Amino acid sequence: MRIEVLCTGDELLTGITGDTNSPFFMERLFRMGEKVAWSQTVGDVREDIQRALREISGRADAALVSGGMGPTADDLTMECAAAVAGVRLVEDSRVLESIRARFAARNLVFSANNARQAQVPDGAEAVLNPVGSAPMVIQRLGRCTFFYVPGVPREYKNLVEREVLPRLEQLIRTQPARVFRASRMLKTVGLPESHLDAKVAPLARVHSRVIFGFRTHAPENHLKLVAEGESQAEADRSLADAERDCREALGAFVFGAEGDDFPGTVVRLLASRHETLSFAESCTGGLASAMVTSVPGASDVLVGSAVTYTQSLKSRWAQVPEQLLREHDAVSAPVAEAMAAGIRREAGTTWGLGITGYAGPTGGTEQDPVGTVYLALASEKDVVSQRFLFSGDRERVRQFAAYTALDMLRRRVLGVGPA
Amino acid sequence: MRIEVLCTGDELLTGITGDTNSPFFMERLFRMGEKVAWSQTVGDVREDIQRALREISGRADAALVSGGMGPTADDLTMECAAAVAGVRLVEDSRVLESIRARFAARNLVFSANNARQAQVPDGAEAVLNPVGSAPMVIQRLGRCTFFYVPGVPREYKNLVEREVLPRLEQLIRTQPARVFRASRMLKTVGLPESHLDAKVAPLARVHSRVIFGFRTHAPENHLKLVAEGESQAEADRSLADAERDCREALGAFVFGAEGDDFPGTVVRLLASRHETLSFAESCTGGLASAMVTSVPGASDVLVGSAVTYTQSLKSRWAQVPEQLLREHDAVSAPVAEAMAAGIRREAGTTWGLGITGYAGPTGGTEQDPVGTVYLALASEKDVVSQRFLFSGDRERVRQFAAYTALDMLRRRVLGVGPA
Repeated sequence: MRIEVLCTGDELLTGITGDTNSPFFMERLFRMGEKVAWSQTVGDVREDIQRALREISGRADAALVSGGMGPTADDLTMECAAAVAGVRLVEDSRVLESIRARFAARNLVFSANNARQAQVPDGAEAVLNPVGSAPMVIQRLGRCTFFYVPGVPREYKNLVEREVLPRLEQLIRTQPARVFRASRMLKTVGLPESHLDAKVAPLARVHSRVIFGFRTHAPENHLKLVAEGESQAEADRSLADAERDCREALGAFVFGAEGDDFPGTVVRLLASRHETLSFAESCTGGLASAMVTSVPGASDVLVGSAVTYTQSLKSRWAQVPEQLLREHDAVSAPVAEAMAAGIRREAGTTWGLGITGYAGPTGGTEQDPVGTVYLALASEKDVVSQRFLFSGDRERVRQFAAYTALDMLRRRVLGVGPA
Repeated sequence: MRIEVLCTGDELLTGITGDTNSPFFMERLFRMGEKVAWSQTVGDVREDIQRALREISGRADAALVSGGMGPTADDLTMECAAAVAGVRLVEDSRVLESIRARFAARNLVFSANNARQAQVPDGAEAVLNPVGSAPMVIQRLGRCTFFYVPGVPREYKNLVEREVLPRLEQLIRTQPARVFRASRMLKTVGLPESHLDAKVAPLARVHSRVIFGFRTHAPENHLKLVAEGESQAEADRSLADAERDCREALGAFVFGAEGDDFPGTVVRLLASRHETLSFAESCTGGLASAMVTSVPGASDVLVGSAVTYTQSLKSRWAQVPEQLLREHDAVSAPVAEAMAAGIRREAGTTWGLGITGYAGPTGGTEQDPVGTVYLALASEKDVVSQRFLFSGDRERVRQFAAYTALDMLRRRVLGVGPA
């Protein structure tokens, strides 16, 4: 089965407005076992739109066309669809009625322009749009079924989800050689993409019915597994086998799957144990606390945090002895450890994390250049610290420092040892 | 002049990998006065690639083709380009030499596969790639000049910037009816998109040679002005006129232009006056501090910050009197004011900012529902506070709270009064 995509709209060709619609449709379709064969974007130009429709009608079984369904003069899609079919535009009274009702409900003035949106090619089927005024239109051209939907993302996604995909699902179901797919995203932290790749490369060879894909969301790296089979059960089985092997190879580097976020994982882990947390942050300047507090319910876990750029605040808020600050650089293992232990006592928490480093772009020493970060974790029993050298710009160093501090804590709580 | 785009690669049709290359090229081209006329993506399928190349060669003056230039069997672009031209693939010895040198420099094993990347259609021109092994290839098909580049974003962007755009610039320069463009981005804060639109709508009617575009990066809203003219001087003049009027209409809502970021603007403003800052954050949980400290050199301005979820930490770190906390809700104007004044004294800074509110999804009271945030700003002279009700989810409320707190400070320092 051959499915194509056509987007219309000058604004999509300037690089200023991105097309978020097509990836949405492609991913949904892919999960259903089909891949878009060809995707095109043309401007609001009659000749180009008609040419694209004609070419698609000659080679595809189904096509999703979006944009150009609005009420203004540069909305040309219905006009072009009628021209290619060699039919007139006719007014659909059901659509007209629904647009009038929509305007009345919103106290908007209905103008002649708005009636244009009720014009559909003769012989085509109109489907009412619950979240906008332009309808979805279904038209047969040659052997291809065209689905026309508005380009407004909210309307597009709603109609694709509710009206287009179920109809395509029915068409796909009748295919003789249908492919079934199942997918899983494994999210890792603490592992560069090349190491992740190297760890699972042998498994990719073993699991030949599973596609291994990688996405970097630094500091996280995600492994996407897509299994194919002749039945859903077969695809599910292949996926489960590959997932089991990948989880075994990756161990505690995997913190979650699709839908999980890293700070949320750590917050829920601590909350389930009724444990609490505080940070003393220097180079991350509040970023680690902000990450944790982005999670709903974080206030059950994070009691407080201190951003301490000065010696005086390190002493007053994080109980770092003044003597220690005279003897050691502010960026050093002893200071990180004192910050972790001090903030833990000061805030009265189960765990205390201390972060100090050179985020750049200036600063650093010969021994500890920009990118050097000392992370320390304090518990009732002990304080441990580790030195890291992160590469990249200021924001990247700060991101890696905050993530890695949380990951030290996660590994300690899970009892799996450092990364 | 008609310029088209063709991307090849199965991975771009699954919705899993996004195409960031084409928007990059489109935007650069648009700034040069031309718009891409048609953009297509096809899979790694010989028949489809050849068909697309043939159609483009019949209607375009120039085309940028990306992807399928690697060393593996599913890299088909050069083979298809040769087939459509009706020529053989020939080995380019200069390219082969450069690939060998590249591998030697990296201590990589050169395999027969890698030599494939030195094969180009007979009669085409190869341009060496400074950041990868696949060359850029220039080929004339019909009246169209094709530029073939690798799809790897780093290589694509490098070659487009250095090799493709300068050549297109030369072609564009010979056009009889060339359009010249000039653009400016004005960044605003404190103004919903609909208000921004309403404020500049009358100006859009006056400046008919200028396109007014809007982009939302909540809490910021950006106004993009693109002026067109028959000469660069004319476009520049139209832009300058429109920018002047927009800046006048928007006043202090404009915090900067392209290249400026909001926290950086505030940090530089304070640094230029040798003034310092501290935060006492409750619902933002470190986010306001993290925003400020993302700016290089922020440590000259931000002395320290306290994230205080508990009463005890509010008293100890932000000097909020215990009596006050017994008399008022933690989310209230008096507590926000006490946090601002207290943190200012505690950290010894020019300015103190206090933030307390209900970020959600749970919490809040009947009078102060989720989304309510009290912001207070303390100076040596006074403490002022304001109540806000932000809509949206937890992260949106936190973002708006942090931005708005910084904006209170910016407006006070600039002496322009509250938004």
